[in-house]
Amino acid sequence: MGAQPNGASSAKRRDAEVLDAAARVFYAHGYAGATVQGIAAELGILKGSLYHYIDTKEDLLFWLLEEVHRDTERILDEVEALAGLDPVARLEEYVRRQMRHNLDNLVRISVYYRDIDRLSPVRLDEILLRRRPATRFVASLIREAQSEGGVDAQLDSRVLTNCIFATMIWICRWYRPGGAWSRDTVVQQCTRYVVDGITAAPLSGGA
Amino acid sequence: MGAQPNGASSAKRRDAEVLDAAARVFYAHGYAGATVQGIAAELGILKGSLYHYIDTKEDLLFWLLEEVHRDTERILDEVEALAGLDPVARLEEYVRRQMRHNLDNLVRISVYYRDIDRLSPVRLDEILLRRRPATRFVASLIREAQSEGGVDAQLDSRVLTNCIFATMIWICRWYRPGGAWSRDTVVQQCTRYVVDGITAAPLSGGA
Repeated sequence: MGAQPNGASSAKRRDAEVLDAAARVFYAHGYAGATVQGIAAELGILKGSLYHYIDTKEDLLFWLLEEVHRDTERILDEVEALAGLDPVARLEEYVRRQMRHNLDNLVRISVYYRDIDRLSPVRLDEILLRRRPATRFVASLIREAQSEGGVDAQLDSRVLTNCIFATMIWICRWYRPGGAWSRDTVVQQCTRYVVDGITAAPLSGGA
Repeated sequence: MGAQPNGASSAKRRDAEVLDAAARVFYAHGYAGATVQGIAAELGILKGSLYHYIDTKEDLLFWLLEEVHRDTERILDEVEALAGLDPVARLEEYVRRQMRHNLDNLVRISVYYRDIDRLSPVRLDEILLRRRPATRFVASLIREAQSEGGVDAQLDSRVLTNCIFATMIWICRWYRPGGAWSRDTVVQQCTRYVVDGITAAPLSGGA
């Protein structure tokens, strides 16, 4: 958490507990409806104790959203380090891993996309800036694939990038753990939808 | 609006103005952060005048979400009435029309998906029930296409249905009127992403 950049592992664990509790309370009540009191109660501590870590409720939302980007950046690093993949295969690998991660972190990903606009302008800009590595990564793989013929060059790489993120993000709205499908089935079928959605041959008669 | 089921056209126009103003204020501040006072100000009327039409702020959100479903039901009726389309072509036509409608109603569609959970349980259930005709329509077209060979029968029609709605809904989060792409380009490329996403041939080696 912001206040403990050099924190030891017990501090990190405590930070994670605080952010998890905040995420659950934001998820249940919406950021606007959540209170620091409610988050403290979720943690089983007094409000005053929670205020040792934060100045405002917004700190918790901001740190939570920063964490989401830290996780995404880790996934990007892992996928960039994989050897011997063509652009479409690398993109497929990123989509698969990011969706699996999103489903394993349903609560915080849901809070991210519902409540991000509640951040103050400066912090909102900071978070929006941190989206760039992932959108650049996806868009540049699409353009590489277009130059190699794997994706129709007539399509706009940024429109496709937005379509891909739509698929990855929205699963958090409809997937329910323990429901009709396993996490792996959803990840596999949605990954295929994405890859097919961008790689099918041009329609005869033009796009 | 609920209070004027037999309203003449001037009453309807006034209702539309009230719901449009509510949508703009909910969009800008979030439902939780919006006030009846703020919506009255947006309309240029006194708060007391607005309370002639509504009992609570929630009435406005509920009526707005009902309107979204009325629009979708109209689109479904139109697409069902088209003659001579195979299941994939009919689905493509629905997706194209629904996306065009969503982009033309960015503000209320955005409010719908961000703030629906702020409804009280009974009204939330009522709105969720009204999603069924559209999800049934899409899922049954996918199953028809599967039985005819246009969509791989190994895929889950409900997972694909969710992927399709993800693409149609999320455009309201990334598309900006007057930005890099025209509405028609976005609709055309996203429709193609959806159709390709569900109709590509099975991968060799199994899905």
